[in-house]
Amino acid sequence: MSQERIKIVGAGLIGTSLGLALTKHGIDVGLENRSKANLRLAIEYGAGKEAEGDYDLVIVCVSPEMTAEVVAGQLAKHPQALVTDVASVKAEIAREVTRIAPEHALRYLGSHPMAGREKGGPGAARADLFFARPWVITPSAATPAASVERLKNLAMQLSALPIVMSAEEHDRAVALVSHLPQLVSSALAARLQSGNEQQLGLAGQGLRDASRIASSDPDLWLQILSQNANLVSPLLAEFKKDIEELLQSLENLDSPGSLAKLHNLLERGNIGVARIPGKHGGKFVDYQLLTVVIDDSPGSLASLLTFIGEVGVNIEDLKLEHSPGAQIGLVEIQVLPEAAERLSEQLTQNGWRLV
Amino acid sequence: MSQERIKIVGAGLIGTSLGLALTKHGIDVGLENRSKANLRLAIEYGAGKEAEGDYDLVIVCVSPEMTAEVVAGQLAKHPQALVTDVASVKAEIAREVTRIAPEHALRYLGSHPMAGREKGGPGAARADLFFARPWVITPSAATPAASVERLKNLAMQLSALPIVMSAEEHDRAVALVSHLPQLVSSALAARLQSGNEQQLGLAGQGLRDASRIASSDPDLWLQILSQNANLVSPLLAEFKKDIEELLQSLENLDSPGSLAKLHNLLERGNIGVARIPGKHGGKFVDYQLLTVVIDDSPGSLASLLTFIGEVGVNIEDLKLEHSPGAQIGLVEIQVLPEAAERLSEQLTQNGWRLV
Repeated sequence: MSQERIKIVGAGLIGTSLGLALTKHGIDVGLENRSKANLRLAIEYGAGKEAEGDYDLVIVCVSPEMTAEVVAGQLAKHPQALVTDVASVKAEIAREVTRIAPEHALRYLGSHPMAGREKGGPGAARADLFFARPWVITPSAATPAASVERLKNLAMQLSALPIVMSAEEHDRAVALVSHLPQLVSSALAARLQSGNEQQLGLAGQGLRDASRIASSDPDLWLQILSQNANLVSPLLAEFKKDIEELLQSLENLDSPGSLAKLHNLLERGNIGVARIPGKHGGKFVDYQLLTVVIDDSPGSLASLLTFIGEVGVNIEDLKLEHSPGAQIGLVEIQVLPEAAERLSEQLTQNGWRLV
Repeated sequence: MSQERIKIVGAGLIGTSLGLALTKHGIDVGLENRSKANLRLAIEYGAGKEAEGDYDLVIVCVSPEMTAEVVAGQLAKHPQALVTDVASVKAEIAREVTRIAPEHALRYLGSHPMAGREKGGPGAARADLFFARPWVITPSAATPAASVERLKNLAMQLSALPIVMSAEEHDRAVALVSHLPQLVSSALAARLQSGNEQQLGLAGQGLRDASRIASSDPDLWLQILSQNANLVSPLLAEFKKDIEELLQSLENLDSPGSLAKLHNLLERGNIGVARIPGKHGGKFVDYQLLTVVIDDSPGSLASLLTFIGEVGVNIEDLKLEHSPGAQIGLVEIQVLPEAAERLSEQLTQNGWRLV
């Protein structure tokens, strides 16, 4: 096989990360970018060289709203190439590509590597950004099987986990598990503007978790939500109904049925959250939580974990919690139930402080 | 000073934890509980002995809806005692106590140790449950200063952080930072009931975080929300307005102003989340994120952290992320910006895999 050549259009976080990863695999990566400064930066990073000549695979990594147009342009420019993209909404882009470039549309196959960072731009790029992340590939009924295989191989080459579904299935899934949560979290965090410092000082981990994604980039999310508005709207409408019912219950607590409705919503929340798969793709395992106190200095967490490693217990999940006003940390460790008691005993006997 | 005697009414998670902690400090703790089985369990744990005789401090740790009545009973039973409680809504309980027992109400002083666990009951109790947690004390204008001092000392004795504010201020604060997030998270998680397995399989950390508190106990939360309904309702009404506006924007994307409204809400979310104080009670520091790959085996996290300790870099925050389908873990480490580059270099040079 002759040396593979892949072209990446768009040297932002995703494009540059792809370039770095593919270059590491010895692939000849050609980069193209509207901003010459970012292009130079990506090339200096080692994400590839300036694109020239023909390519048989083109990956379009531009903003969601530019994607269809750029895909169409690349399909025309490289008449033998398979062209894919990485945008987080798939059906509208596929429709647009078919509308703008119907004669080439069979050579387009959408994909969505579900990777990202809080920061954008080529400077935030990482060769291993896609490592162990789902990479959704969204063929239509007419997509050649070989194209799907090509992108599956690309994903696996970068240690991502390829998942094949239709563009509509993908968009419906991300509307539920990504776009609705984004809107809800943003709307919740927006309410914090009305709070004073004393009130916000009582914020705990619950609020921090519930509002974390509200710090996402509004410009990017405006584009994502716009492209998936027709699938997000019905979910948000259902959510709004629940909020309305909650509000009515709270405002009329003495009316018959109000408490039952409130209780029912809380129970449905229990059921819903239990449906999210846990780590390793499996169902939630009911891990046991141990909380250990450490002082907030270099090495103290390490010596705790060294000790746990020596005991031979595997940490399934770990969270470090710092309490306001205290120079100590609480380490929350999840372990398998059968290991919890032994670990707890060992820790206590060896002078660790469990809370 | 003669030996202190404190009575705890209610041997659930909070009451038993208080008993364990106070007993460790050499205080003579008397326990009282409606369920004799739970009382015996708490006593066996070492949380105190069965209450008898008189006490000068009584801490009522029963369910929110029972609290006022039990407080009133204890005020009558112990005519010299300061009686406090630990319920998470304060104003309604204070009103009820004044209504039921006006002649004793000056001896009641509400408090709210902001500590808890996912699990309830005496079996989940921990002596250090209150360690470094806020403990809100809610005097009225008529409360004697000595009573406030007494509870502040109690909180500090248990290494909690006493914060004094009025019951109304407290309830307004928790409505915003605790009760509204609970309702929103529960309503979001309730929507997951409509998703299929394929959709939920694409769930990422964002959804996990946003829905985590939706797994809280519906029975307890029904009581909490009922007692604070008048302060939670206006916040939920404002939230509902934002959701309605969002929905209208999404359903009429082409109408003038729709995109601006959507963008504005996302921006307000940015501003709101930035108002939550960070660790050590300060404002958010812009920590730098490093992500390191480890294999999912005992000791691998420890050896990473041992190495970081040797480099002399303090970990400000740490999250362990397991990817579905992969037997590896991603360790997300937050460090001060000035330490990030050095640590990153040291890790890479010593064979750690950064992503």
